[in-house]
Amino acid sequence: MPKVRLALAQTNPTVGAIVRNMERCLQMVQRAGQQGAEVVLFGEMAVTGYPIEDLASQRSFVLSAEEAVVEFAQKLNRSGLGHIAVVIGHPALAVEANADNHAIAQNRASVLRGGEIIGTYAKHHLPNYSVFDEYRNFLPGNKLLSFEHAGMRFASVICEDIWQAGGPVSEIANQSVDVTLILNGSPFELEKTDKRFKLASDLAKQTSTAVAYVNLVGGQDDLVFDGGSFVVDHEGRMIGRAAQFEEDLVVFDITSEGTAVCTEPLSIERKSEDWQIWNALVLGLKDYVHKNGFSSVVLGLSGGIDSAVCATIAADALGSENVFGVSLPSKYSSDHSKADASDLVTRQRIPFRTEPIADAVASLESQLQLSGLAAENLQARVRGLILMGISNAEGHLTLTTGNKTELAVGYSTIYGDSVGGFAPLKDIAKTLVWRLARYRNQQAREAGFVEPIPENSISKPPSAELRPDQTDQDTLPEYDLLDTVLDLYIGQQFSPQQIEAKGFDKQLVERIVLLVDRS
Amino acid sequence: MPKVRLALAQTNPTVGAIVRNMERCLQMVQRAGQQGAEVVLFGEMAVTGYPIEDLASQRSFVLSAEEAVVEFAQKLNRSGLGHIAVVIGHPALAVEANADNHAIAQNRASVLRGGEIIGTYAKHHLPNYSVFDEYRNFLPGNKLLSFEHAGMRFASVICEDIWQAGGPVSEIANQSVDVTLILNGSPFELEKTDKRFKLASDLAKQTSTAVAYVNLVGGQDDLVFDGGSFVVDHEGRMIGRAAQFEEDLVVFDITSEGTAVCTEPLSIERKSEDWQIWNALVLGLKDYVHKNGFSSVVLGLSGGIDSAVCATIAADALGSENVFGVSLPSKYSSDHSKADASDLVTRQRIPFRTEPIADAVASLESQLQLSGLAAENLQARVRGLILMGISNAEGHLTLTTGNKTELAVGYSTIYGDSVGGFAPLKDIAKTLVWRLARYRNQQAREAGFVEPIPENSISKPPSAELRPDQTDQDTLPEYDLLDTVLDLYIGQQFSPQQIEAKGFDKQLVERIVLLVDRS
Repeated sequence: MPKVRLALAQTNPTVGAIVRNMERCLQMVQRAGQQGAEVVLFGEMAVTGYPIEDLASQRSFVLSAEEAVVEFAQKLNRSGLGHIAVVIGHPALAVEANADNHAIAQNRASVLRGGEIIGTYAKHHLPNYSVFDEYRNFLPGNKLLSFEHAGMRFASVICEDIWQAGGPVSEIANQSVDVTLILNGSPFELEKTDKRFKLASDLAKQTSTAVAYVNLVGGQDDLVFDGGSFVVDHEGRMIGRAAQFEEDLVVFDITSEGTAVCTEPLSIERKSEDWQIWNALVLGLKDYVHKNGFSSVVLGLSGGIDSAVCATIAADALGSENVFGVSLPSKYSSDHSKADASDLVTRQRIPFRTEPIADAVASLESQLQLSGLAAENLQARVRGLILMGISNAEGHLTLTTGNKTELAVGYSTIYGDSVGGFAPLKDIAKTLVWRLARYRNQQAREAGFVEPIPENSISKPPSAELRPDQTDQDTLPEYDLLDTVLDLYIGQQFSPQQIEAKGFDKQLVERIVLLVDRS
Repeated sequence: MPKVRLALAQTNPTVGAIVRNMERCLQMVQRAGQQGAEVVLFGEMAVTGYPIEDLASQRSFVLSAEEAVVEFAQKLNRSGLGHIAVVIGHPALAVEANADNHAIAQNRASVLRGGEIIGTYAKHHLPNYSVFDEYRNFLPGNKLLSFEHAGMRFASVICEDIWQAGGPVSEIANQSVDVTLILNGSPFELEKTDKRFKLASDLAKQTSTAVAYVNLVGGQDDLVFDGGSFVVDHEGRMIGRAAQFEEDLVVFDITSEGTAVCTEPLSIERKSEDWQIWNALVLGLKDYVHKNGFSSVVLGLSGGIDSAVCATIAADALGSENVFGVSLPSKYSSDHSKADASDLVTRQRIPFRTEPIADAVASLESQLQLSGLAAENLQARVRGLILMGISNAEGHLTLTTGNKTELAVGYSTIYGDSVGGFAPLKDIAKTLVWRLARYRNQQAREAGFVEPIPENSISKPPSAELRPDQTDQDTLPEYDLLDTVLDLYIGQQFSPQQIEAKGFDKQLVERIVLLVDRS
């Protein structure tokens, strides 16, 4: 019975960095070749990174990507790897234009063998919702790609093509295919791992083929691709999974009957929600910093929970020696705030300095005769200005410590605490910030390390300390209630009436809706 | 021979403000009725404003718009205007979903008469390039709308439907139509007036129908709709044009043979390029400020050309009493800068104050030990912080004075001179800023007024004054050359090699390309 050795090559490409991405791909094929692989499958747009957005309309960029694929095929051949069928995702110019769509490119998967491109597929279903804008950037294809290799038949489709009904996927069952190869650029969301498995498993059962699913890994601007590539057999069973949140190369043997085994033992157990979220935040920050040419970050440390968690994520991502903490006390800053910030940096050995803002604030406040909210904003802005000054002088990226809850209700100062190149917690509600802090401390405790986050930063009442004895709950509802209502109103698009019908206080709901709409 | 009196109702809706928009529409129909109109044509999405972007995926918003159309039909009927056929643009829920597209709404034109909706059309071609993202937000329609009224036959299509080949427009010629009605939301671009006329004129000749073209007017975020609605007769001749850059109601008599006359004399002469650009900037600023709930602006006045032109646009838009100028001198600010700023505000009676930044900069510079670029950025940021403080305390919107050239080459400081809610010159290259200043002065001179902009601000060498005796040309190429190369590289997507081939110096081109790519 024919059998093929298939490698899933889960890479972390950088958008636009074609040369660097292809070097990594070559290393992957070399490693796969050493393990006897006859087919190597990469992710969607592994050549250019993903999503490429408006680069898809730059003819010269798309042509560079196509040339890189041709050169890659030749280089593999010269390196003695021409016998391997390599399936890789990249953009290419479309052959026919379309009057209704100004896009010039297609989202392709090409098969390389013997120094040549022996087949190519253009993605059919172009997602155009949520974070995707592909119909704007690409023209759709309509034809299934299938090819013979090592005595077996393979079909290849791209990501969204298996999430929607219809299109070339429906041809797989008619073409005596043994293995279906799916190239993906699927961003991390909780529970998506299960959805991907179900789609692949259903497809395997419908088509009686083994299904190999390769996802990209890595952070790209606001998105994090989580990897977790896998193979299911022809009966839809999970055979093995690659790592989540890191590059990986995993190898399987698949028969023409659709049975599959991993060549090395692979756990198919799933990690906890908190583990997944924490690792997504760490990888997202690490790649944002590195892919934008930085190696270190600076952030203000108030002693509060948000800045403590941001600093810890950054230290996990970059090493604590690359995280520069700054205490920026005003005349309202309490002693415990300063002590908590100092405790945090001691626990994690984070470089730390203090830059008081009281004098600068006092002199500007009296020059401009500011009071009330304008004066509170002034404090936040002087802090922002100092962090940006340090960032410019020393070359660190500035982190913004605001969380999703604050952003939703407008509890932040534009050009003040909102300054910075990256906001690690912008998608994390306040209650989840606390939960993650407890998770990270527990993880350290269980591994026998010092807890990175001071207990006091987790348990004290949150305060922006922009006025004497201020706490967040002077202005905002309790965070538990607030986050629940925000999720219903923004996340699930419930109307205020629908939220009240679930038993929430009418005044509370109205107050929160007003904060959100105004923000 | 049947004849109909048709009114073009060119309104300035605010996105989301359905109630206010409909009040204005009602007034327009009442005025049209007083002039004997039997048909009133509004622009694309006149009910909700345009573009509505993600509001199109909020079911409750789309339903409110549909209800508003039904109520409008009833209210017209109760007001004795039920005999008029009113054609108006609005979003509506689509009847059928589409697997590939998560949109729920369509971009519609409905015909109201006798208190009811007697017909509706869904836009077929959904533009998805440049500033448009309609395929993301709407599902396409496929069927022409035509209806009988006052003994004549009308067809109705929407905007992009006449810019692309194919679709329902091709049915017009088969349906004995007398008058084609086109609802548009077409943003201002130079020379677009001619393109719109040519498309309408070609359509009139192909279909032997008179063509009525109504455009929206008004600023909406970054876009300015310029109005300029018009009628061409069945032989493609321009019969009359509504005003550009303001609301208008113009009335025509059209026969079943396709001949047309205006009921009042209308000029069809076109205004100069400079007039159009200036008025687009004034309307864009005015609507941005008012539609966001402000009535006044604050800006820094350096004595330079950018801030002088921004202040003049703002004074034309809001009245000079609503423009608050602030001089923010540092230790590098020259006497002539301060004198030029003071001359500007005197000419225009702009409220003015001086807030020196030297002390705050000196104390922060020494606290943080900043020098070089970090110190230059600090000056810009202290200025930004003072403007935002005044904005918060007094409720003015902050204007950013940077121009398109500076933004393209990164000659601005993030959170410094880039702070502000609106940047009037962000699409205006530096050389055009000078040209507009001269144009505005000349216009004032010819009308017998004081020239609003000091000659010295126009003719002196530009300088950011962040170092002693600095001029922009210490760091940047001459602006004439720079703007020409930027237009080739960014505007027309020429490669550096293609630009050099046009005779530009290789080193110069490389330097500019590097600045742009880094920015």
